[in-house]
Amino acid sequence: MQSTATIDPVLASRFDEARAASRVLGTRPTAVKDAALGAIADALLAHEPAILAANEQDIAAGRANGLGDGLLDRLTLTSQRVAALADAVRDVVRLEDPVGESVRGRRLPNGIRIEQVRVPLGVVGAIYEARPNVTVDIAALAIKSGNAVVLRGGSAAEHTNHVLVGVLREGLGAAGLPEGAVQIVDDFGRDGARAMMHARGRIDVLIPRGSAGLIETVVSESTVPVIETGAGVVHMFLDESAPLERAVELVHNAKVQRPSVCNALETVLVHRSAADRLLPAVLDRLLAAGVTVRGDEAVQAVRPEVLPATDDDYATEHMALEISARVVDDLDQALEHIDRFSTRHTEAIVTEDLASAERFLAEVDAAAVMVNTSTRFTDGGEFGFGAEVGISTQKLHARGPMGLPELTSTKWLVRGDGQVRG
Amino acid sequence: MQSTATIDPVLASRFDEARAASRVLGTRPTAVKDAALGAIADALLAHEPAILAANEQDIAAGRANGLGDGLLDRLTLTSQRVAALADAVRDVVRLEDPVGESVRGRRLPNGIRIEQVRVPLGVVGAIYEARPNVTVDIAALAIKSGNAVVLRGGSAAEHTNHVLVGVLREGLGAAGLPEGAVQIVDDFGRDGARAMMHARGRIDVLIPRGSAGLIETVVSESTVPVIETGAGVVHMFLDESAPLERAVELVHNAKVQRPSVCNALETVLVHRSAADRLLPAVLDRLLAAGVTVRGDEAVQAVRPEVLPATDDDYATEHMALEISARVVDDLDQALEHIDRFSTRHTEAIVTEDLASAERFLAEVDAAAVMVNTSTRFTDGGEFGFGAEVGISTQKLHARGPMGLPELTSTKWLVRGDGQVRG
Repeated sequence: MQSTATIDPVLASRFDEARAASRVLGTRPTAVKDAALGAIADALLAHEPAILAANEQDIAAGRANGLGDGLLDRLTLTSQRVAALADAVRDVVRLEDPVGESVRGRRLPNGIRIEQVRVPLGVVGAIYEARPNVTVDIAALAIKSGNAVVLRGGSAAEHTNHVLVGVLREGLGAAGLPEGAVQIVDDFGRDGARAMMHARGRIDVLIPRGSAGLIETVVSESTVPVIETGAGVVHMFLDESAPLERAVELVHNAKVQRPSVCNALETVLVHRSAADRLLPAVLDRLLAAGVTVRGDEAVQAVRPEVLPATDDDYATEHMALEISARVVDDLDQALEHIDRFSTRHTEAIVTEDLASAERFLAEVDAAAVMVNTSTRFTDGGEFGFGAEVGISTQKLHARGPMGLPELTSTKWLVRGDGQVRG
Repeated sequence: MQSTATIDPVLASRFDEARAASRVLGTRPTAVKDAALGAIADALLAHEPAILAANEQDIAAGRANGLGDGLLDRLTLTSQRVAALADAVRDVVRLEDPVGESVRGRRLPNGIRIEQVRVPLGVVGAIYEARPNVTVDIAALAIKSGNAVVLRGGSAAEHTNHVLVGVLREGLGAAGLPEGAVQIVDDFGRDGARAMMHARGRIDVLIPRGSAGLIETVVSESTVPVIETGAGVVHMFLDESAPLERAVELVHNAKVQRPSVCNALETVLVHRSAADRLLPAVLDRLLAAGVTVRGDEAVQAVRPEVLPATDDDYATEHMALEISARVVDDLDQALEHIDRFSTRHTEAIVTEDLASAERFLAEVDAAAVMVNTSTRFTDGGEFGFGAEVGISTQKLHARGPMGLPELTSTKWLVRGDGQVRG
């Protein structure tokens, strides 16, 4: 069903162009799509000066507009980062093409043969903010999986994205694929995003990447199916049996190694029986790394630097060097806390007790449930998927890190020789 | 994220009860869930008199309210149909439990073991109209797959559904499972459906089953993820090489065998070179079965009974003994017509030409694409899935007939021994 909502004719024609291109891309063999990706990687390196110049413009505008340091860092491209983008595209070339994969099949008792095969979704929409690398990552994954993309990358990266889209199209054209497979609507500002959210029948799926606010807006407003990504209020529970050094290192790594991402730790829960043994060293390591710690009274009693924690703190994804901490009576109370505050992204337990580990794995409801590892491993690259479309925190279609198969649908091929139903 | 929309507290408590029950069901072994299903089948037979008495009330009210024959037929239960419902529940017992199935897994280079396993979705909402069999079918599939259900079955079947929900709960209780796993909101009328559509975070997925209008309302209004089911504007293309008898039988079976369902044929397209050879017998067989035929001029010229067809006719799912027919120049024009009017449910070609068959399979974008069979085979039962949740016409999560695995999500279990990310 195509939505009957009115839409700007220029935007409609871009969406239609993407749809037409998707029909071509959807039937082209892997070798042709790989050739386009190779050409895109080459073009990224060849056009580095233009990319960096456009990026300078965006950075200058961002500084003038008072963009925060975190956003400025995400916005910034360097020679190294452009090379990394080209490498990421070449990594996608090496990934297996999911299109045409036979998922399952059988011969029915009446002789009909049914086979479910992977097909592209069609047109994938991405709405994100100030991360030009997403422009290239998502387009490369979409092209490999036979999809067209409509991008809305946010005004902060408008100049950079404009140049990157040109590079993507140059690569498509070089391989004889339709350049219309990559569309961008940044020039329409918020209206572009709004049109995408109401382009039911024109866009097959929307992937928002960014702040919780952005995702919530897309989820509430969109009539196009959405894959919810991102927000991670991530917990680590230090069980009674957690070894001291392991607990200290895992909490530190999960919080500090890259605090601005969704799989970074936000709350550490400590078993009351292990609090005296574990908390001093855990807190000292965090405080030494410059982390602001907020905790309940039991945690505050351990170190004077610990500020009081509220329920709001427990519900917050800080994306910064800030952490909440709480002492819980037992595994049950840890599970209750997680159930209440989790965004169902990644949850971890540190334990040496088999029963605790298995209960945690079975009962915690999240995209990734971990035993004795840093939560930073919930990642398409770490999982071996190559570049990542995002980390789905919803339960439908895809859950957890999304790679190429998550950008496909299926269809049933049914072959008979005249069977009728009785 | 849980929606902040206000909700009637009685409805909220039913949704919460379903959520709490889903946590229990989600971790119970197959044997316990099967025991509940067995008890439900027994209870259906034991309570047949009460079920039929309630159904009589609904039928009488339906007649008084001028319900159409098709709806009255779907609403009606008989002793035989109740027995068939019980049999359908026992069929679900025999199906494999998808929960816990390991979908994929590997050991990462750093020694971490990742494994993706199937888990229940949680709370499944179903919105449907005047089909009490759906109440039992969906609840049985949900229970087997570890999900709770919230049902909105429509005022026309309110008395029947009330008794059926009692039977379902009795079966759950007999097996020691929480009766709250089956909730119904029929007593809230349209407000019940509306609350379900805004119960984001409380209901994990909504499945609308019924008219195109019902589905469109749910799709547009719901902030809960929806699996779109149903509407089928189904085509059959008779290629130049289609054998006469096969073409006649397949068109007749696809249209006439059960015209009120979504996989029934709505439009027959005939290759111009084969029109003189095929159309007279195809039309005669349809007309003899009482089918109203609307066609373009070429079809009208064959038999005087053929009425003129408009684009509206080509876009209509009749669900009755009515069909549209059109002569097309070639396979390309057939593909164009299908692309324009298809609801992407089921599309078929009748041909003896290998290249035509393969092109049709590759290029038609639909949940099921068929060669030389009746379109009536797009069906969970026929595909071997047991009872059917519906036929998804969307591309995300599930496409085509949905069985038990389509009522599950996955989660990643991640086991390490202290790995940190560098």
